Amino acid sequence: MPVSRGGNNNGELHEILSLVEERSFGELRRVLVEMNPADIAEQMSEIPDDKSLVVVFRLLPKEQAAEVFSYLESEDQQRIVEGISDKELASIINDMFVDDAVDFTEEMPANIVNRVLSTADPETRRAINQLLKYPDYSAGSLMTTELLRIKSEWTVEAAISYVRSCCRELASITYAFVTDESRHLSGVVSMKDLLGAADDELVSNIMDDDVIYASTTEDQADVAERFKKYDVVSMPVVDGEMRLVGLITIDDVVDVIEDENTEDIYKMAAMAPIEDSYMSTSVFQLAKKRVVWLLVLMISATFTGLIITKFENMLTAVAILTSFIPMLMDTCGNAGSQASVSVIRALVLGEVRFSNILKVIWKEFRVSIIVGICVAIVNFIRIIVCYYIGMYQVDPGQNIYLIAGVVSITLVLAVICAKFVGCTLPLLADKAKLDPALMASPMITTIVDAVSLLVYFGIASLVLL
Amino acid sequence: MPVSRGGNNNGELHEILSLVEERSFGELRRVLVEMNPADIAEQMSEIPDDKSLVVVFRLLPKEQAAEVFSYLESEDQQRIVEGISDKELASIINDMFVDDAVDFTEEMPANIVNRVLSTADPETRRAINQLLKYPDYSAGSLMTTELLRIKSEWTVEAAISYVRSCCRELASITYAFVTDESRHLSGVVSMKDLLGAADDELVSNIMDDDVIYASTTEDQADVAERFKKYDVVSMPVVDGEMRLVGLITIDDVVDVIEDENTEDIYKMAAMAPIEDSYMSTSVFQLAKKRVVWLLVLMISATFTGLIITKFENMLTAVAILTSFIPMLMDTCGNAGSQASVSVIRALVLGEVRFSNILKVIWKEFRVSIIVGICVAIVNFIRIIVCYYIGMYQVDPGQNIYLIAGVVSITLVLAVICAKFVGCTLPLLADKAKLDPALMASPMITTIVDAVSLLVYFGIASLVLL
Repeated sequence: MPVSRGGNNNGELHEILSLVEERSFGELRRVLVEMNPADIAEQMSEIPDDKSLVVVFRLLPKEQAAEVFSYLESEDQQRIVEGISDKELASIINDMFVDDAVDFTEEMPANIVNRVLSTADPETRRAINQLLKYPDYSAGSLMTTELLRIKSEWTVEAAISYVRSCCRELASITYAFVTDESRHLSGVVSMKDLLGAADDELVSNIMDDDVIYASTTEDQADVAERFKKYDVVSMPVVDGEMRLVGLITIDDVVDVIEDENTEDIYKMAAMAPIEDSYMSTSVFQLAKKRVVWLLVLMISATFTGLIITKFENMLTAVAILTSFIPMLMDTCGNAGSQASVSVIRALVLGEVRFSNILKVIWKEFRVSIIVGICVAIVNFIRIIVCYYIGMYQVDPGQNIYLIAGVVSITLVLAVICAKFVGCTLPLLADKAKLDPALMASPMITTIVDAVSLLVYFGIASLVLL
Repeated sequence: MPVSRGGNNNGELHEILSLVEERSFGELRRVLVEMNPADIAEQMSEIPDDKSLVVVFRLLPKEQAAEVFSYLESEDQQRIVEGISDKELASIINDMFVDDAVDFTEEMPANIVNRVLSTADPETRRAINQLLKYPDYSAGSLMTTELLRIKSEWTVEAAISYVRSCCRELASITYAFVTDESRHLSGVVSMKDLLGAADDELVSNIMDDDVIYASTTEDQADVAERFKKYDVVSMPVVDGEMRLVGLITIDDVVDVIEDENTEDIYKMAAMAPIEDSYMSTSVFQLAKKRVVWLLVLMISATFTGLIITKFENMLTAVAILTSFIPMLMDTCGNAGSQASVSVIRALVLGEVRFSNILKVIWKEFRVSIIVGICVAIVNFIRIIVCYYIGMYQVDPGQNIYLIAGVVSITLVLAVICAKFVGCTLPLLADKAKLDPALMASPMITTIVDAVSLLVYFGIASLVLL
């Protein structure tokens, strides 16, 4: 029984390539037919030369070809499109689900888009054109127009026999949507409820008229939120006049969720998010996405430098204080970004909101006391040990215990400040309708650096001078 | 038509609470019946006192109660369980899908678990007990045991009528699973293919015997990967002897994906991941998850401090050099974590692997040249401007242009080093089967701090002394 775990088998690629080389096309076709479309796409993306790639693609049975094609990365899709005839292209496009065809079209250069649109059959072309007009990242751009529509006055028997006649062309039959004469969405029946109902029951009696839906112009991230909240596997999409125009299925939403996470992670690391995969984004694009924040943070670090300049005399008097600056800056920066990242993630997951700000501050305050004292104690011991094994020199007239004490008390106070800044800024950003992810580590590091140095020099002047 | 966008309506909570206060239970019940279970759960979690919470819960119609219950956070579930009778509890548990009942049971203290198990009917109890024995985060712990089983020798007509007889009790009917006498999984038929086939066709002729499946003991993150790769909405789970034992549906996988992302984000910010939501994790737990990495990073920052101590004489001779240390450390730390976070995310999404290491290094090298030069130029101008407006004092005999040049050249070289370290460490970690997310910002910051200071002092000694 060839039940498959879908492992990543390197041997398969070698087998495919050597079958191409030997021109054993019959054998190769047999191998391909046994494989899962997603696996075939993965193996194909590793084929280096375009000719072999097109040969393998042409060997796929017609019904498999469109599916494999929709799993390919856009650069591999382009390599194939450039090597096949218009007729072959038309057959793939017409066999793809419309939303996959649109995803593909959006990624292609203009000349290929024109080829796609001129070869597709009129119905497909109309559907693609319609979907292409929705803005990027909108619910409209994510949906497919193929969905199961039934009428409220039908009996369950009639509805089931209708489903049986058309289900093969649909992307999802989990829900059947009930529309009136003017295509307004009036209800939904899950396939489970439809199949479970008696034959002579009317659809209007079993449909649920409380439908969770999306609007074409809505942001896809909001739609993804609603999928998570209501645990649904597909969601109808309506236009401005509440007419049913499409369907979003959860497999597309999973991709949106991953994209949103990538975006957040990039912002937290002080980068503008990239739109493509890392490997297919150009060096220039990557540099552009990164340099802006580096410049902002570099310039803001000037203030930290100025603080050091202001206290130059003290650093000359007690030279060893300089050597603790990196440790203080790093520890407090890390402590602050721990708090900010926790709060940002909790905001994204809907676990906290601005109204919880006092609870969050109180929580972080207690955490920072525990963490700050632990770090301070270890740090005190570390300094004393380092001193006795001769790693630190102290000028005559200065007391290493006093110096270690100053550094450790600074740590406690600066960790408290860092966690406070780290947990409040993202909540304030969210309240001000700014993206909290932008308030993550690097931004907070800069503020926390300045605060911790001021605390450090303040305490040092009091105690040591 | 009460089609709902499922908005977050604050008015609803006030309405519910005032209806409870007025004891208008009939009206309240009418309001609740109109609402979506997920919305009811959201509103209920905001009800402060336990009595009102239990009142609202008791007003829910029986079939809605179990669903609302499974949407509640575990702390609210516990508040309700403590306020209702054993009979009410039994009715909820028996009406919940088994996987939701297990999720609930796992979160409860021992006394409530015992109450749940002793009140559930024998069949439910057996199913819960069976699922509870699988390790946390395994496919077994994620699955439900309710799935659609059909026989290969049945006709399509017989299979459909079987589906119609039992579909209401099942969590998902998207796929029907074909098993032999010893319950071994031998194939799968999608509901689409089943409904689309002719009545007298045999199931064996339309079933797909290349099934993507999971094993009970497998890690849930690997299962989630497979869902994404093959774009499936549910996946059968088999035991060690390939017997079909359960089903994982995509709504549970979406939660796993979010959990995995949260875990990665926590690790990148130098924290051990928390298991619960931020708000329900105790202060002590949060402190524990954070303090270990802070200690490690604090101690490793000692080396950075030692480098400064070594070059103390130079810092005394050219005092202004000290004030650029924070800027250098921050900029290079940020540049390094930009590279590491990009590569870690690409690894997680399967876009790069260790074999691409040379391509990645070459890419980051070119990015770092562009970014480094931009930052260096702006920095040079900034220093000169700051000097002329009197923000920097320079000792006689020193040239501000020379100093700005030293800082700027250091920036270019240190950014190149930072990006190199940032992109290689995660790939090496992945190769060594360590978690690349642990190689993110804080770890890299410490290394990059040391490198950038060495470059700085090296160049400064050559040029300025």
